[in-house]
Amino acid sequence: MTLYNIENFEYRGTWMRPSERTANQIRPVTFTRNYTMHAEGSVLVEFGNTKVLCTATVEAGVPRFMKGQGKGWITAEYGMLPRSTHTRNNREAAKGKQGGRTMEIQRLIARALRAAVDLKALGENTITIDCDVLQADGGTRTASISGACVALVDALTNMRAKGMINNNPLKFMIAAISVGVYKGQAISDLEYLEDSEAETDMNVIMTETGKLIEVQGTAEGEPFSFEELDELLGLAKHSIREIIDIQKQALA
Amino acid sequence: MTLYNIENFEYRGTWMRPSERTANQIRPVTFTRNYTMHAEGSVLVEFGNTKVLCTATVEAGVPRFMKGQGKGWITAEYGMLPRSTHTRNNREAAKGKQGGRTMEIQRLIARALRAAVDLKALGENTITIDCDVLQADGGTRTASISGACVALVDALTNMRAKGMINNNPLKFMIAAISVGVYKGQAISDLEYLEDSEAETDMNVIMTETGKLIEVQGTAEGEPFSFEELDELLGLAKHSIREIIDIQKQALA
Amino acid sequence: MTLYNIENFEYRGTWMRPSERTANQIRPVTFTRNYTMHAEGSVLVEFGNTKVLCTATVEAGVPRFMKGQGKGWITAEYGMLPRSTHTRNNREAAKGKQGGRTMEIQRLIARALRAAVDLKALGENTITIDCDVLQADGGTRTASISGACVALVDALTNMRAKGMINNNPLKFMIAAISVGVYKGQAISDLEYLEDSEAETDMNVIMTETGKLIEVQGTAEGEPFSFEELDELLGLAKHSIREIIDIQKQALA
Amino acid sequence: MTLYNIENFEYRGTWMRPSERTANQIRPVTFTRNYTMHAEGSVLVEFGNTKVLCTATVEAGVPRFMKGQGKGWITAEYGMLPRSTHTRNNREAAKGKQGGRTMEIQRLIARALRAAVDLKALGENTITIDCDVLQADGGTRTASISGACVALVDALTNMRAKGMINNNPLKFMIAAISVGVYKGQAISDLEYLEDSEAETDMNVIMTETGKLIEVQGTAEGEPFSFEELDELLGLAKHSIREIIDIQKQALA
Amino acid sequence: MTLYNIENFEYRGTWMRPSERTANQIRPVTFTRNYTMHAEGSVLVEFGNTKVLCTATVEAGVPRFMKGQGKGWITAEYGMLPRSTHTRNNREAAKGKQGGRTMEIQRLIARALRAAVDLKALGENTITIDCDVLQADGGTRTASISGACVALVDALTNMRAKGMINNNPLKFMIAAISVGVYKGQAISDLEYLEDSEAETDMNVIMTETGKLIEVQGTAEGEPFSFEELDELLGLAKHSIREIIDIQKQALA
Amino acid sequence: MTLYNIENFEYRGTWMRPSERTANQIRPVTFTRNYTMHAEGSVLVEFGNTKVLCTATVEAGVPRFMKGQGKGWITAEYGMLPRSTHTRNNREAAKGKQGGRTMEIQRLIARALRAAVDLKALGENTITIDCDVLQADGGTRTASISGACVALVDALTNMRAKGMINNNPLKFMIAAISVGVYKGQAISDLEYLEDSEAETDMNVIMTETGKLIEVQGTAEGEPFSFEELDELLGLAKHSIREIIDIQKQALA
Repeated sequence: MTLYNIENFEYRGTWMRPSERTANQIRPVTFTRNYTMHAEGSVLVEFGNTKVLCTATVEAGVPRFMKGQGKGWITAEYGMLPRSTHTRNNREAAKGKQGGRTMEIQRLIARALRAAVDLKALGENTITIDCDVLQADGGTRTASISGACVALVDALTNMRAKGMINNNPLKFMIAAISVGVYKGQAISDLEYLEDSEAETDMNVIMTETGKLIEVQGTAEGEPFSFEELDELLGLAKHSIREIIDIQKQALA
Repeated sequence: MTLYNIENFEYRGTWMRPSERTANQIRPVTFTRNYTMHAEGSVLVEFGNTKVLCTATVEAGVPRFMKGQGKGWITAEYGMLPRSTHTRNNREAAKGKQGGRTMEIQRLIARALRAAVDLKALGENTITIDCDVLQADGGTRTASISGACVALVDALTNMRAKGMINNNPLKFMIAAISVGVYKGQAISDLEYLEDSEAETDMNVIMTETGKLIEVQGTAEGEPFSFEELDELLGLAKHSIREIIDIQKQALA
Repeated sequence: MTLYNIENFEYRGTWMRPSERTANQIRPVTFTRNYTMHAEGSVLVEFGNTKVLCTATVEAGVPRFMKGQGKGWITAEYGMLPRSTHTRNNREAAKGKQGGRTMEIQRLIARALRAAVDLKALGENTITIDCDVLQADGGTRTASISGACVALVDALTNMRAKGMINNNPLKFMIAAISVGVYKGQAISDLEYLEDSEAETDMNVIMTETGKLIEVQGTAEGEPFSFEELDELLGLAKHSIREIIDIQKQALA
Repeated sequence: MTLYNIENFEYRGTWMRPSERTANQIRPVTFTRNYTMHAEGSVLVEFGNTKVLCTATVEAGVPRFMKGQGKGWITAEYGMLPRSTHTRNNREAAKGKQGGRTMEIQRLIARALRAAVDLKALGENTITIDCDVLQADGGTRTASISGACVALVDALTNMRAKGMINNNPLKFMIAAISVGVYKGQAISDLEYLEDSEAETDMNVIMTETGKLIEVQGTAEGEPFSFEELDELLGLAKHSIREIIDIQKQALA
Repeated sequence: MTLYNIENFEYRGTWMRPSERTANQIRPVTFTRNYTMHAEGSVLVEFGNTKVLCTATVEAGVPRFMKGQGKGWITAEYGMLPRSTHTRNNREAAKGKQGGRTMEIQRLIARALRAAVDLKALGENTITIDCDVLQADGGTRTASISGACVALVDALTNMRAKGMINNNPLKFMIAAISVGVYKGQAISDLEYLEDSEAETDMNVIMTETGKLIEVQGTAEGEPFSFEELDELLGLAKHSIREIIDIQKQALA
Repeated sequence: MTLYNIENFEYRGTWMRPSERTANQIRPVTFTRNYTMHAEGSVLVEFGNTKVLCTATVEAGVPRFMKGQGKGWITAEYGMLPRSTHTRNNREAAKGKQGGRTMEIQRLIARALRAAVDLKALGENTITIDCDVLQADGGTRTASISGACVALVDALTNMRAKGMINNNPLKFMIAAISVGVYKGQAISDLEYLEDSEAETDMNVIMTETGKLIEVQGTAEGEPFSFEELDELLGLAKHSIREIIDIQKQALA
């Protein structure tokens, strides 16, 4: 049985995305390494107009609950600059707390990266990923994860150069994409205009080995069928493969 | 093509769950309505030893951002009593903030219930769902959603009795289940001991019409394959059907 | 001189409480032990429709300010589920702070229980009492204290079984009651309807040996006389004796 | 029956308080009016070395929950300057929250003053009492209440002068005293050294008409008997009468 | 008398700044307009390695305390990305409050810009300036002010294009520079290495008309003399003139 | 060249300050030592109607970031009593955070005092300065600094008496004054009425040796010229000399 392949797409009549892209066409994706100078890994990731600065900070030691286990830790924080969006959002630092969406996204980023790393091989060190959205146009969480993985690779290289670790703790590259059902059609890499009207929204994180790290699908309007889920997963698999190729070129 | 059917399960050798249940066997599920006396809907939901008190509160009016649209709103809050768990968790009210996990769960509950309701038919009224975990043994978020749906039905009935609404805004019942891969085998309705060692953890919310509201699958250890995802979805579909039957009996 | 005896009551004409109880009649009081399964002590206390879940958690060690004194510590936290009341109260965890009433009550609970225990005999261990109101109908703080004492006894038994302590640190059982002046008449164990219109409201905590732990009397409307205070204390003494009997039966 | 009279005291042998005062002797009490220049009422109250600045601020309007009832409101806030005590306490503004003790005291002050005022006669105006402890030596809450009452009288006079009210809303003067059992002997107006070793601590608020507004007695060490309570109340009655005389002289 | 002119500098022997710049030589300064796409004004300002994204957001209406005065308002917020610095700073949104330094800087930015604008001519509109430091190497507050002024000009042009205002409310351009005494020598535009060892640190904000908006000089080590102050002000005047020229070129 | 001397003042026509003082005339300044009894240094400073209680608390040990350097630390906190001002300000402890102005002032006070002390000679001890404004009439921050210096001297004397330090760590006395341009004329020690209408506001902190610790000048309305700055600094120098004389008399 061939599951979730791009061949499964069925185009339902003549149709044009607001972005004028084909259903499975992602936006131009770029990873600019060493975007800032202080962090052990610093990558500006762009998915079209979505731009996120991902930095990886290496610190010796682990949080208290991890001490003495001989293992490392990876954590993540996410933020949007107040005017990264169409209208200004209140600054979370000024409000005095991070919102639920922020918490949810940073937990997702951290969990995904921990799944990609052998924490034993990391030793008792902590890597903190910061994903700060400079400009938002849909897909900030999936861009963040894809960019954070590149920043993580750079930070691990830096750790090896300094002799903090001997082996590469990275088990595999990971990348993420948002897919969704828009006017009844499964499409990949939704930008804001598409995302805000999608019936179903799904974020998928996969490894370079073609396995799944996380699947989060939500019916924004009507519930979705297993067939639609199938199509979306096929699209995601296809797009993530493209992104991982671009990550590898950036790291080459 | 038959997708995600329980027939897809493949049992991998002789094997016993810690709970001594079969792979697709859910725990005893009960819904006790009118568990407390003040709320418009009040349901104690039990999935085995997991016990959650779900109340639905009806209030006239909507939050500011919804005003003047002629639509209602559904929101949700989730909390665990400090000693609902094996070891005591700090009380969030005393810490002064809700943690990321709490935020994530209450956003999920609210989103799922909004998907089940025609907000236009609700009028400019707000329903607040409170899910408070009295005792936890795995699956608190899926039990919460399943119980909240029953409390919501009672609250809507109450609103009709009071003349606040004329038609039933409920589009369909919803229920949720957690499924996971434990020692290589897909199993349904994980209890704490199983959950804490599962390789993959997935929460699925479905409608009584067999469609999907939310799918959240996470690789806790190794990444999972599309085949495993397929099995998990089949299991979830099967279990949710059982839970919806029990909900309906409770409401009969 | 016989002070504060039930014989002092003076009935002022024919008269009926909203609750249809006699002036010194308390509501049905029950203590359900082992109500939840994780805590070292877990008691559902019911004073009529007022229902509070009291758990006692045992942890080795004491807070920093107590270290090295060879003594234990008892602390308490109190909360109301948002819809335990007629109209929904905002969740304190969501508001980001506990209100003054909550703070006042949890300080009272902790102080009362510490007075009942020989902290030396407790060793450097901490017992945390959580009182969570599932349903409120007046008298939640006095029900909490009465229930917490039973949960505390169970927790101390558990500690002895585990060898954490050798002797019983409990000096005496304690219980509490609310009494008040309602339409000029002293009455015991006020429920919500009575409490909200009482002129004077008093909470009394006593030991099984007939001594006082705490007396808190407040003029809600008109100031009260020493004669009324006298009557109220007599009533309280009488009712607490009844509650301590019920506690002992529950523990038998 | 003569209840709670100073004649009831029984001196148990030759005995000296640390303060070298007799059992029923209060410290020198003074009220300095117009201590600061901006507030409508501003009183420095001194009970020996305990010094509290009490200001009363008049503002037109009432909090939202009181609107449209044609009644006024009185609220209170309490604070200790960080170094008003033997060792420095952390500043609550810097900690980001008021502690439980602070909350408890400011609720007590406000409740007591509201009991002394006809809120109808106050009109839809709010009086905010601020009690800030400049120097602490025991009894700050009872000094605060006694001083706040004087500041309140000045604020009400100010309101009448401005034509905000026509009649005097004050029903009666109130004052407060702390009494306690120290080495087995009931004593009045405990200073810090006495207070920190008292077995029982009681705060009593009374009206000039000899009635009770609030009684709060706490067993700090051993529980106390009804006889001890009787003695303490008698002492309190005696001392409050003295304080009210001094208030009246200050206002004359 | 010629006050504060660059001619006043006195070079004290042969000497080299860590930055290998001459005493009055500022770093390369650039203003990249339209750096992000959503804000009405968006400028990336670079002072050497210090990079700050300054956005200006226009919103109709003013804060409550300004309502009905027919005047506009300008406010500012400042933040550093956690890894904009050598070692990672905790994210203020996660800590739940902005630090004193952040507050101080954002108050300074807002005050300076308000001084440059005729608030009457702005109408009842609010401009919010966000200065987010992407990379820090000394002088982030003065770079922020200099960049914010350019973003403000773009926002005002945008308002006129939309017909929100008729006249240009800008009274004059402003710019800022940090000057300091390093090893006894007054130098301009300190970078981190210089700043961290400076004896005196001064931030100066001036108008294009050569007047002062703000002077903030601080003795970090030894107090400074009036002569040193004189030298520093002369340097600042000279450097600000250069920066205003670059601003004008960027806006041409 | 004579810089910043009082001789530089130029009186621009016949003119009267609201305070009926001459341009360089400060208000009556007094320092009352030992104003409260617990603190190691306790000074009530009065600049006319501005009254601030400054206490200095000595504690062994230093904050974590200073440990092991063999140096001491000085920190400061500032607060205004809610009704120290014309209209009541919300209590910062109740709001749950200190405002930007408070933060800015307390940072300034601490920085100034640290500049006056040889932290090595202080040993690993911490001095905490609390400046609490009892009554405000302009110039609270400069009064705070001037009073805090006297309290600091008393605290250091106390430390020497106790043998905590051997030498006097004070390098020089410091004092502060606010100066400003009011209706085109430079004036010293502005009271509230003058301050609220000043075009330029400047706070200056100087040593008894005539050197500068901090200069903070702000254009409240129109920008100011270098000539005005010159005049203001001359005034400040003159007034600070007077204040330091009064400090010395108080300490004599």
